[in-house]
Amino acid sequence: MPRIVIIGCGFGGLFAAQALKRAPVDVIVIDRTNHHLFQPLLYQVATAGLAAPAIAAPIRYVLARQKNTTVLMADVVGIDKHARTVQLDDGQRFAYDHLIVASGATHSYFGHPEWQAHAPGLKTLEDAFDIRRRVLVAFEQAERVRDDAARRAWLTFVVIGAGATGVEMAGMLAEIARHTLSGEFRRFESRNARVILLEGGPRVLPAFPDDLSERARRQLEKLGVTVWLDSRVTAIDERGVEIGGTRIDARTVIWAAGVAASPLGRALDVPLDRAGRVIVNPDLSIHEHPEVFVIGDLAAVTIDGKEVPGVSPAAKQMGRHAAENIMRRLRGEATRPFRYRDYGTLATIGRKAAVAMLGPLKLSGYPAWLTWLFAHVYFLIGFRNRLVVLVDWAWAYWSFTRFARVVIEPMRGHVSDHNKEDPS
Amino acid sequence: MPRIVIIGCGFGGLFAAQALKRAPVDVIVIDRTNHHLFQPLLYQVATAGLAAPAIAAPIRYVLARQKNTTVLMADVVGIDKHARTVQLDDGQRFAYDHLIVASGATHSYFGHPEWQAHAPGLKTLEDAFDIRRRVLVAFEQAERVRDDAARRAWLTFVVIGAGATGVEMAGMLAEIARHTLSGEFRRFESRNARVILLEGGPRVLPAFPDDLSERARRQLEKLGVTVWLDSRVTAIDERGVEIGGTRIDARTVIWAAGVAASPLGRALDVPLDRAGRVIVNPDLSIHEHPEVFVIGDLAAVTIDGKEVPGVSPAAKQMGRHAAENIMRRLRGEATRPFRYRDYGTLATIGRKAAVAMLGPLKLSGYPAWLTWLFAHVYFLIGFRNRLVVLVDWAWAYWSFTRFARVVIEPMRGHVSDHNKEDPS
Repeated sequence: MPRIVIIGCGFGGLFAAQALKRAPVDVIVIDRTNHHLFQPLLYQVATAGLAAPAIAAPIRYVLARQKNTTVLMADVVGIDKHARTVQLDDGQRFAYDHLIVASGATHSYFGHPEWQAHAPGLKTLEDAFDIRRRVLVAFEQAERVRDDAARRAWLTFVVIGAGATGVEMAGMLAEIARHTLSGEFRRFESRNARVILLEGGPRVLPAFPDDLSERARRQLEKLGVTVWLDSRVTAIDERGVEIGGTRIDARTVIWAAGVAASPLGRALDVPLDRAGRVIVNPDLSIHEHPEVFVIGDLAAVTIDGKEVPGVSPAAKQMGRHAAENIMRRLRGEATRPFRYRDYGTLATIGRKAAVAMLGPLKLSGYPAWLTWLFAHVYFLIGFRNRLVVLVDWAWAYWSFTRFARVVIEPMRGHVSDHNKEDPS
Repeated sequence: MPRIVIIGCGFGGLFAAQALKRAPVDVIVIDRTNHHLFQPLLYQVATAGLAAPAIAAPIRYVLARQKNTTVLMADVVGIDKHARTVQLDDGQRFAYDHLIVASGATHSYFGHPEWQAHAPGLKTLEDAFDIRRRVLVAFEQAERVRDDAARRAWLTFVVIGAGATGVEMAGMLAEIARHTLSGEFRRFESRNARVILLEGGPRVLPAFPDDLSERARRQLEKLGVTVWLDSRVTAIDERGVEIGGTRIDARTVIWAAGVAASPLGRALDVPLDRAGRVIVNPDLSIHEHPEVFVIGDLAAVTIDGKEVPGVSPAAKQMGRHAAENIMRRLRGEATRPFRYRDYGTLATIGRKAAVAMLGPLKLSGYPAWLTWLFAHVYFLIGFRNRLVVLVDWAWAYWSFTRFARVVIEPMRGHVSDHNKEDPS
């Protein structure tokens, strides 16, 4: 039986694998993690609103009944498109007849890799745990230090980049400071914490039309977020950020500005765009290798002069489309070009605050937030997760508590860099 | 106002703090973590049955309305009982009028500290995440390796020590192999995994009477656990364990054999027992320092020739008693000796399998399991957790799924020691 190897089990890889369920093929799905992640809610794990298992479904469990499919938890370190093999971290090689590369994207620090240590991004559960720890520990440190300037730096949170993730993170951080933690500290009031959202461009949520951007900005400020537009970060260190000549002392900085395609794109040795994404043929295959498909955030697809955005509905559609094109090739038929169906764009900001664009319809505030809520719960993989997430949210909504306020790692005599004690 | 410092916020520390709620004192609670942990259910996090937040309540949240109390997340590195100060990891010192030391216990490897890297114990959330990762990754590795002996070693799980934790862990591991993961792998059947429970003594659950121990052993074997009694481990390495001349090739080993008191006991410079526990006066204070109390797993208390066991009801009772004795001292009254009220002993083994001793009543099997279930859910801190835990358990019970099957860390080109690839 022809063997299809799928690298990465995000939305693209998972939908490709599921589309091959009844096909007379041998499917191998390889992912570095053991779970499919519902990335649109990852910011909720990072901000202590949800526990990790609520948004992570074991890949093996999701595909258990798909008997033609083998799941491997492994890191792919190389692709040989001439020999038609992929190589794992342990040296094992798997031959393929068709390959789907869906390894997604990672953070880009615009030529400043040293910023990563001080300003983590949010792509994986590991990232979310790191951010959750930093945020919760910052408030804890503020209760410990005795110097006012040091306390103020621990209580200043900077989010860099006002795309969907940056806006969500800033909105949630403001809610944590204003509501969740209010009244729990003895040496300061958490409401006085500052959340600053820095955006290099002239408006927040640049994927939305001007008027919705402006409404989003107003909703953010109402929630307590300070928005700085046209503010490009020029330096980040352990103690804060600089915007040109202006310095902000902040012990917690979150990166939501740049995305770079997975390095596996380079392994294919084909033309890439500026963000490192693979420029694919209209049918999603790569140049001179019709048996290799690239999908999701790793693929640069332009249809009628318009770029397909790096969002989960696009990845799902590409996954299904690549699987169908493989089936066509196996039947000796011609492949078909990918068409992107845009169902709309949503961005949440905070409690009752969101913006949405559904075809000609523009929403903001409470109606947009309700739309966002139901769309996301509906699309969560697996019934159980959906139920638990709803219960958690209902609880959080009414009580203002965030139940996942857990720092896994204890304080230790030798504390980590981020937790390093002030001389104050 | 007199200042009471409480070190550690397990059951002992938390109950002491809450007993001081209305007292005219200034309370400082110091813990290395930010959460009070419901340790009796920690094995459920380690075996992917519950998410961490379900059994961890933020200390700050629990004590938020107790206005005389300050909570600090910090590591106490020293106690000066003459100067009456405690010292934190950052050098800060706090003076106290009364001190309650409730820093609990940690693992003891019987003079073999090198075993720890290969056989983690289960005391903290960090431990639970480590064990969960090892167990889930072992099955993943078994799907990857091509050599049968290597696969068999990945599919062999050894639990050392058949006290309550060891029995729970072994029972859950057997359930995972037999039910949860069954049918999910293509190169082996998870039911064939071996779970071996090693006990140095002649029976499991030595805290129970002979007949209940025997019933527990039979229930374990019915669940699929192989029980080896009178089997003392003589060596542990990355590849397995040795019992005298017998070797078991096993890539996952869990330590549930020895407990040692927290090293803070030594800092008090008073007589300790063999396990490093502080030998306290009948009123729980220490020799020559009536203002210092030691409670919970760190305290060695003997009443009428009988040792008070290291269980959570005992810690709670000691916490409350120490707080009351401090109040008596502040009023100029004499302190009272501690009395332990034993409500019974429960140990769970697995689905519908448990043993219980409630006064003269001995239970085993389904009735014992139901008793255990309701007792534990009832005592969970906080209503929300209780509800979520019940929902999770009901779901797990009917569906045999364990929803927290998440490995946070991805596989990486350079994999960690435990995940190191076989040469096979």
